[in-house]
Amino acid sequence: MIQIAILGFGVVGSGTAEVLTENKKLITERCGEEVSIKYILDLRDFPDHPLGNRVVHDINVILSDPEVVLVAEMMGGSHPAYEFTKAALEAGKHVVTSNKEVVANFGAELLSLAGRVGVSYLFEASVGGGIPIIRPMQTDLASNQILSVSGILNGTTNFILTKMKREGAAFSDALKEAQKNGYAEANPTADVEGLDAARKIVILAALAYGVSISPDSISTEGITRITSDHTATADKLGGAVKLIGHTERIRGKIYAAVSPYFVPASNPISHVDDVFNGILVDTDMLGRALFYGAGAGKLPTASAVVADIIDILSHRTAERRLPKWKRAEPADLADTADYACRRCYLFDGCPKCAEKAKKALGTEDCTFITDTKFAVISPVMTARDAALAIEQSGLTPIFVLPVLD
Amino acid sequence: MIQIAILGFGVVGSGTAEVLTENKKLITERCGEEVSIKYILDLRDFPDHPLGNRVVHDINVILSDPEVVLVAEMMGGSHPAYEFTKAALEAGKHVVTSNKEVVANFGAELLSLAGRVGVSYLFEASVGGGIPIIRPMQTDLASNQILSVSGILNGTTNFILTKMKREGAAFSDALKEAQKNGYAEANPTADVEGLDAARKIVILAALAYGVSISPDSISTEGITRITSDHTATADKLGGAVKLIGHTERIRGKIYAAVSPYFVPASNPISHVDDVFNGILVDTDMLGRALFYGAGAGKLPTASAVVADIIDILSHRTAERRLPKWKRAEPADLADTADYACRRCYLFDGCPKCAEKAKKALGTEDCTFITDTKFAVISPVMTARDAALAIEQSGLTPIFVLPVLD
Repeated sequence: MIQIAILGFGVVGSGTAEVLTENKKLITERCGEEVSIKYILDLRDFPDHPLGNRVVHDINVILSDPEVVLVAEMMGGSHPAYEFTKAALEAGKHVVTSNKEVVANFGAELLSLAGRVGVSYLFEASVGGGIPIIRPMQTDLASNQILSVSGILNGTTNFILTKMKREGAAFSDALKEAQKNGYAEANPTADVEGLDAARKIVILAALAYGVSISPDSISTEGITRITSDHTATADKLGGAVKLIGHTERIRGKIYAAVSPYFVPASNPISHVDDVFNGILVDTDMLGRALFYGAGAGKLPTASAVVADIIDILSHRTAERRLPKWKRAEPADLADTADYACRRCYLFDGCPKCAEKAKKALGTEDCTFITDTKFAVISPVMTARDAALAIEQSGLTPIFVLPVLD
Repeated sequence: MIQIAILGFGVVGSGTAEVLTENKKLITERCGEEVSIKYILDLRDFPDHPLGNRVVHDINVILSDPEVVLVAEMMGGSHPAYEFTKAALEAGKHVVTSNKEVVANFGAELLSLAGRVGVSYLFEASVGGGIPIIRPMQTDLASNQILSVSGILNGTTNFILTKMKREGAAFSDALKEAQKNGYAEANPTADVEGLDAARKIVILAALAYGVSISPDSISTEGITRITSDHTATADKLGGAVKLIGHTERIRGKIYAAVSPYFVPASNPISHVDDVFNGILVDTDMLGRALFYGAGAGKLPTASAVVADIIDILSHRTAERRLPKWKRAEPADLADTADYACRRCYLFDGCPKCAEKAKKALGTEDCTFITDTKFAVISPVMTARDAALAIEQSGLTPIFVLPVLD
């Protein structure tokens, strides 16, 4: 019998207990021993839950119990989750987590601490819910240089964008629908402003490049300014508007950002709809791999937490190579003006204006979306050159979206 | 310095040497030591290759050299690859392979042998080329029961079907195009008759259910009978015809088969085009996850071989839990007549015939594809019941395809 503790008995915490119970037989087989939840830490009591008698309110009960070999942290938020994680690692306990805020903000320090103590700190559930992405990037793609990672990392915004695309709904109506369905919270800021996706892309950037960037320091734009102009343009051009977290290296420095993109139909990410997530990893040897699935939700996320638990408990004697993340310094970060891609512009105007825009952007790729609005797609150019070209043309685009090719 | 040997210096074998050379720095970092190719076994000599001086023609040179800790087998074909693998494992060497024929036919025995000797036998590259699928199924999905696996497992046939869909090409012309592009071999039988996909689906079935079925014993149908009737129907209904390897449990027994399916646009697999592979794993906790990428090719496949090499060499001290596969007995296999799914039928005939077909199949789902041909989609029913319903109706469908929902 292996004793573990759960910190936080909310959606993912109770889901983790459910997965451990429902699939006890196969989990026991894979760990070589039965896994038992000895403690559940929460502010609340759960008198009616079958595991209600495991609830404690003091972290020290868990920290001081040598029987507890692993702690699963699913509290959400940075504090006190970070402090509890640190204390658990210091107490020699393995930690697994679904908490992207803690991993994004304190991952470098916690991984280094875990390495020094000789325990594991795993976080498969922190990005993409239940989708395998963290472990595959560290193992299956280990023979590759990561060229870039581009992902639909937030299910709420993808649900909203899918609704806007399919039904021509306005952003505010699609958001209300998402809230009604339980896909968006009453305060949807973290989702719709891209903050949640920002936390996830900095985790993926750290895995790809070994440099941990603060999510607050990257360029982050959400979907609140997406209108029917965007969706009509994407529809006409064949493709979709998606909120994308993207990271790549630019001349040895790291670029990471979150923003809406126009994704042409030829990119498999354009077909990732509803609340699903999809993460495209581009590498030097394998080329592109896409990981797709349920990016959130109780049991999917819990399934990833339990996969981490099994990974640790089935390899307890193994020396584990934890990734080493260096905290980013300003010199590690690329200038966002150097980010180069194709860009999709929508303009108001007549065929004569269209000629002017095409000339300014050096392209023949121009499509009239309505009688008086036309879209122009620029060749690959840096943000700096693109802004300059538009400024010199004297034209004012209705919008500009980077293109995810 | 860790010494390894490569068996077979064809496309994947030379690709593996290339990945090891190109990404030497990161591979050394991840393995903790430099990986060196001490021997290359091949019938041929490669005097002009930088590694030409490593070529040997006698397996015993490798087997008897205690410095060689790992053998990468990329010979293709069952013999002598199976014998060499067995001998290498018996000599206490780890083995990694891209050889699906050997894994599909002898995997159970070789895994058991590796377990007894205390070495590893890994085969990520045997299914889906470079796409992470074998390791994610064993680790990331370890907390889940696998409900089913459905995959586009052969890039050649997917290229041909994509060509037929996009350009209305006939099978024979699309095959010629694939051969011209190097995607199909001069003798394309193993690909177009579904034999290659059969080997891969039995490997995935063994991973999912622990039972290793001979690829020769499963129902296997290729794409040689696919015509413009199929593609026009799929196009009209919104979706695509795809060659699918599928496995699931039917009342505790294993069903595995390869055949063309109609895949509706709502299934993410319908968007996996060209030479790409896509594998959809349906599970009890996570739900559906899709793994997508380059299913073949020199460097993608080699990247998976090297990922296995890194996995082993970075965990040499760890006790590895290899999967235990039981060789399938007739009682383990489901009756194909019990396989239940929706089915798409195309019939010749008038509106009156359409009424008759709808009634026979108990559905209202009927679409005229041309003035005289109509498609009917049945509800979920077993192959047995579906065949009986058609027989009793007296109608003769032009084709019937299972539907992948």
